[in-house]
Amino acid sequence: MLKNDQLEQWDRDNFFHPSTHLAEFARGNLPQRVITGGSGCHIEDREGNRLLDAFAGLYCVNVGYGRQEIAEAIADQARELAYYHAYVGHGTEASITLAKMVLDRAPDHMSKVYFGQSGSDANETNIKLVWYYNNIVGRPEKKKIISRWRGYHGSGLMTGSLTGLEAFQKKFDLPLDRVIHTDAPYYFRRETLDQTEEQFTAQCVASLEALIEQEGADTIAAFIGEPALGTGGLVPPPAGYWPAIQAVLDRHDILLIADEVVTGFGRLGTMFGSEHYGLKPDIITIAKGLTSAYAPLSGSIVSDKVWAVLEQGTDENGPIGHGWTYSAHPIGAAAGVANLKLIDDLNLVQNAGEMGAYLKRTLTEALGDHAHVGDIRGEGLLCAVEFVQDRDSRTFFDAGDKVGPTVAAKLLDEGVIGRAMPQGDIIGFAPPFCLTKDEADEVVGKLVKAVAAAGL
Amino acid sequence: MLKNDQLEQWDRDNFFHPSTHLAEFARGNLPQRVITGGSGCHIEDREGNRLLDAFAGLYCVNVGYGRQEIAEAIADQARELAYYHAYVGHGTEASITLAKMVLDRAPDHMSKVYFGQSGSDANETNIKLVWYYNNIVGRPEKKKIISRWRGYHGSGLMTGSLTGLEAFQKKFDLPLDRVIHTDAPYYFRRETLDQTEEQFTAQCVASLEALIEQEGADTIAAFIGEPALGTGGLVPPPAGYWPAIQAVLDRHDILLIADEVVTGFGRLGTMFGSEHYGLKPDIITIAKGLTSAYAPLSGSIVSDKVWAVLEQGTDENGPIGHGWTYSAHPIGAAAGVANLKLIDDLNLVQNAGEMGAYLKRTLTEALGDHAHVGDIRGEGLLCAVEFVQDRDSRTFFDAGDKVGPTVAAKLLDEGVIGRAMPQGDIIGFAPPFCLTKDEADEVVGKLVKAVAAAGL
Repeated sequence: MLKNDQLEQWDRDNFFHPSTHLAEFARGNLPQRVITGGSGCHIEDREGNRLLDAFAGLYCVNVGYGRQEIAEAIADQARELAYYHAYVGHGTEASITLAKMVLDRAPDHMSKVYFGQSGSDANETNIKLVWYYNNIVGRPEKKKIISRWRGYHGSGLMTGSLTGLEAFQKKFDLPLDRVIHTDAPYYFRRETLDQTEEQFTAQCVASLEALIEQEGADTIAAFIGEPALGTGGLVPPPAGYWPAIQAVLDRHDILLIADEVVTGFGRLGTMFGSEHYGLKPDIITIAKGLTSAYAPLSGSIVSDKVWAVLEQGTDENGPIGHGWTYSAHPIGAAAGVANLKLIDDLNLVQNAGEMGAYLKRTLTEALGDHAHVGDIRGEGLLCAVEFVQDRDSRTFFDAGDKVGPTVAAKLLDEGVIGRAMPQGDIIGFAPPFCLTKDEADEVVGKLVKAVAAAGL
Repeated sequence: MLKNDQLEQWDRDNFFHPSTHLAEFARGNLPQRVITGGSGCHIEDREGNRLLDAFAGLYCVNVGYGRQEIAEAIADQARELAYYHAYVGHGTEASITLAKMVLDRAPDHMSKVYFGQSGSDANETNIKLVWYYNNIVGRPEKKKIISRWRGYHGSGLMTGSLTGLEAFQKKFDLPLDRVIHTDAPYYFRRETLDQTEEQFTAQCVASLEALIEQEGADTIAAFIGEPALGTGGLVPPPAGYWPAIQAVLDRHDILLIADEVVTGFGRLGTMFGSEHYGLKPDIITIAKGLTSAYAPLSGSIVSDKVWAVLEQGTDENGPIGHGWTYSAHPIGAAAGVANLKLIDDLNLVQNAGEMGAYLKRTLTEALGDHAHVGDIRGEGLLCAVEFVQDRDSRTFFDAGDKVGPTVAAKLLDEGVIGRAMPQGDIIGFAPPFCLTKDEADEVVGKLVKAVAAAGL
């Protein structure tokens, strides 16, 4: 077994970690943590720490850690056939079965699923498909994509452009052309404090209408949105938002891409966020919950309407010029099949809904009256607590005060992982769906301590 | 066990296959093939066929199929810890060990490795890093990327733009801005037949110089190239190409990205194509051979020079805003560690070099004088046979004659998989590194039969 010192040196000398202060890490000023195992909602590290992971990795380990059913499905697939490609009609029993299982769970009007590896590459695929679609139907000018400020859709060049968060764009020359942003559906951060939720929704809709008017509907191909905002702050939409947005898109013949990387397969207490909020998407992006992250796998579920045009396109132009070597990778497919079965067997979607309601209620009871808590929100197991300097005037802290990161650090000292979201003083919770009441109570109790320890 | 009929129906109803004629597949006019297992250079399907895969999947199963050492490493990792993220200094013993192993094998001037899932996403990362680099060093205008016609660098929006093949761009509005293309380093397809290889190289270099002059060196950030062309035709570079190109890039302070997705970890008979041809890249893209495709994993290896600027960037701007949920996925990392060990233990890099030379010699002996064979080329286990209508005048067939696909189909009838490359009548061979002489002889013997059966 490797010594910890040796491993740490290898890490600092060789490993380029994502979303990390690279210089501080290389200099040894940022801690290193080597994760060795996990079970249910808990992970363990090499130093012997056991932590309650109330963010499920990056809101992805939905069934919890250490599920041997999925591990054995991966092991069996690896022994039989770790890899073959899916090009030109090739597949494996696992990949075909998973395609069927995904469509069985997706809204009725969806037709086929293309498998990738990550949510980012699935959104790449989606933009390619949307452009192809409009070329085939003879609208070559209809190509722009509307995204929302605070949306998160990936970390690539185009997908990072869709993402409406400064941290992912600064110094990378993003957003690229053809991406335009509209209002974040974030009622707590409305400009006019005395606006009702309905008035705020009406403003979002009017703002979208104005943007479409300004750009020209015949230049706009698609609108992309998460049913509930994820990395932008874990924000359920304001009352009436999606039906009203959907109506605008329908009127202007703009496709809807529902990015369900976070919400797909149960996080809101329903199988998809689209059914939860009444969206009728043309494409649905899936990733994290598809395999509970046990292996990399993503997907683009396309509707009957889009599929018909893709068929026309290949009839006119031959095979579609899009493919990843690891599309529908057998290991990912095997993990996906086992994961979706486990979600059903353990009734985890329902548990996510029930425990989500419990967690939000408990958070509200514990911190709802705190002077520095501005908002407690959530839907299913996607909850957030937002801190403010002054509650009544809704005055935010300076970003430089690092209130969110400080609370998260204090919470970690207590043995609980919550995530300080990148923009605003927001602690996010998105635990595995197997969360128990005791674990929810522990999260809330320790958050209360952490808030006090942070001097709030 | 599922019935074959049932599986076929599920497949056609639900599964969006990459690089496929979608309408023909859905209508049942394209065959379906369900792969069930494999061993060494062979795969098996559900119908009981056993095929010699002389393309190693998509030139990725470098150690061959059915390697239980890798399967067990994946199984052990899945049981212990299938997933945790690598953000902000987190890691696993597998991911840290693999980072060290990659850097031990990479050229000395390389510093760190960022892990992704696919070659496409690694090249996304690379472009982001190159743009970030030039922003940090204060050259915000130096952003264009030069790629080559017939290069292959992925199938995303920006990576499909880098790719210089029509099939991946048509109807997708690619290439995007900031990508420009220069000559394919493809001597057999030179315009002037009586040109020597050295004259052709000089022309490629002059053409690159002219492009840089025209665009302005201060607008060009990087040059990306595969050490030997892959999907564009499996073409080793002409004599003297890389040292001459490298000199031009150095003179204009243009970074070099060596896309070693195909060539990395041994395919040319050396660990990297960069050492094989004397490139000194600033970034190296790796994927396929990193895990032999047993799990999705890619990487961007950055040089000391680039890393120093990334450190400066995070000192000035905080954590780098780039990350995939599945960066350094533990399953992929465990597969990578076991795969690189196996390559060493079985001496597979040397075998790739020796068997590659044998395969090329045998192909040349069998078909070198054939009236419709224009070129037989290769380096290590990356070989191609290019067919022409007339050998002396180097007249190509019409693409509509589908000579390449026909030969590949006849070869498949014989039980051998070679790949009809997308542009030109080229049959590519890139078998696993464990190829034996008997298997090489079988490939060649059956290709001779297939060529005859195709009416050539």
